[in-house]
Amino acid sequence: MIQTFKLTIEYDGTRFSGWQRQAGQATIQGELEQVLSRILNQPIRLAGSGRTDAGVHAWGQVASFCADTDMPPPVLKKGVNSLMKYPIVLTECVRVPDDFHAQYSAVSKEYNYYILNRDTPCAVARDYVWHIPVCLDLDVMNQCCQLIKGTHDFTSFENTGSQRRSQVRTILMAKVDRQDPDRLVFRICASGFLKNMVRNLTGTLVDAGKKKITPQIFEQILAGRDRSLAGATAPARGLFLKQVHYR
Amino acid sequence: MIQTFKLTIEYDGTRFSGWQRQAGQATIQGELEQVLSRILNQPIRLAGSGRTDAGVHAWGQVASFCADTDMPPPVLKKGVNSLMKYPIVLTECVRVPDDFHAQYSAVSKEYNYYILNRDTPCAVARDYVWHIPVCLDLDVMNQCCQLIKGTHDFTSFENTGSQRRSQVRTILMAKVDRQDPDRLVFRICASGFLKNMVRNLTGTLVDAGKKKITPQIFEQILAGRDRSLAGATAPARGLFLKQVHYR
Repeated sequence: MIQTFKLTIEYDGTRFSGWQRQAGQATIQGELEQVLSRILNQPIRLAGSGRTDAGVHAWGQVASFCADTDMPPPVLKKGVNSLMKYPIVLTECVRVPDDFHAQYSAVSKEYNYYILNRDTPCAVARDYVWHIPVCLDLDVMNQCCQLIKGTHDFTSFENTGSQRRSQVRTILMAKVDRQDPDRLVFRICASGFLKNMVRNLTGTLVDAGKKKITPQIFEQILAGRDRSLAGATAPARGLFLKQVHYR
Repeated sequence: MIQTFKLTIEYDGTRFSGWQRQAGQATIQGELEQVLSRILNQPIRLAGSGRTDAGVHAWGQVASFCADTDMPPPVLKKGVNSLMKYPIVLTECVRVPDDFHAQYSAVSKEYNYYILNRDTPCAVARDYVWHIPVCLDLDVMNQCCQLIKGTHDFTSFENTGSQRRSQVRTILMAKVDRQDPDRLVFRICASGFLKNMVRNLTGTLVDAGKKKITPQIFEQILAGRDRSLAGATAPARGLFLKQVHYR
């Protein structure tokens, strides 16, 4: 019986060449497909909600696939989690209607970017934060967040090498919170993201937090539709795909 | 000019053979002494507040040392943090009176032990938590915490191989909190700790949380003064030396 499954996946992206399957490289998609194919005794091809870059992590990546099986989802989940040798776990595995597709059915996606903001470097959990030794102004960063809310052309925050036709995206939520005295988190939810968009926004927000640029300049960068105007790409290790939302 | 310094140290203990210097092993004390000796151009010997085992981490280990130097503490701190190649950082470096000693001046110490309590294994930050797939009863664990508060003989929770003469310690604080839906933290503050005491207490608290033992049995284990009565030693990776308190 052909069934469609939806997987929710948590992973530590540190030692992977990103989500997408690549010959000869350790990737999250590749490792998951291998384990699923072995358990279900048939070749499995996953459709992810989108790619994540090398070093980017996920609390809630989503992937879907079809398989000819009667295996109950909880049994499949347990099997994958016990056979998996890498820091990739299924936090959820459910059957979904046949027309569900992890990428095309998604209505929005949420990312978190973690910043350690103190003069002292990071010792514990270094693989999961970007260390900024200069004190960041949270208010200025949040003024910039207000400017990206709504629908805009994000060309200034898209790295080259993408084949997307439109750079227009809708930002549903964007804010920077202080989690504890020296830890900030940038939360963003959007209808979709361009290549390296969250990391490029983060790099530019950090420039604003350092007072290297004003919110007015930030607004001009957005309006300028030119990647060379914006800040550097923040490191992959601070970025987590938090959740993918479906109707 | 001979000066006494107090260092507050954060470290990721995962890849170290513990705090204490050992020939041919990577240890936190050993790496710090090397860097300090190089910067201060004289052999430095640290006195730690106490040892931590291989794999145990620290947010706030404390060490003291004497050196013949005029170097201001902030310069020393910056120097150590920029030369250090390992996940060890000084979060504080101050001058203290000559009679200060990181171990003998300490009045109490606080540890945190982190537990991931959900059926799904851990993917992110695996080196910092103990995964318990069975639902733990927080109330029962906290009833046991009440029983260890105050002054008791903790022989049942001390691993062999220690040369301490007295097993009597005073517990100032002990409780288990839920940090988020699937994350627990056991916090304990005491006048001092025996070998593996926090990890042995955690292992036995987890037995209580699983309803393998009742608080009454826990009380008998404590009163029995026999290590074979208590639960297993919890893994090192969930344990953090949180803070050392001085007068």
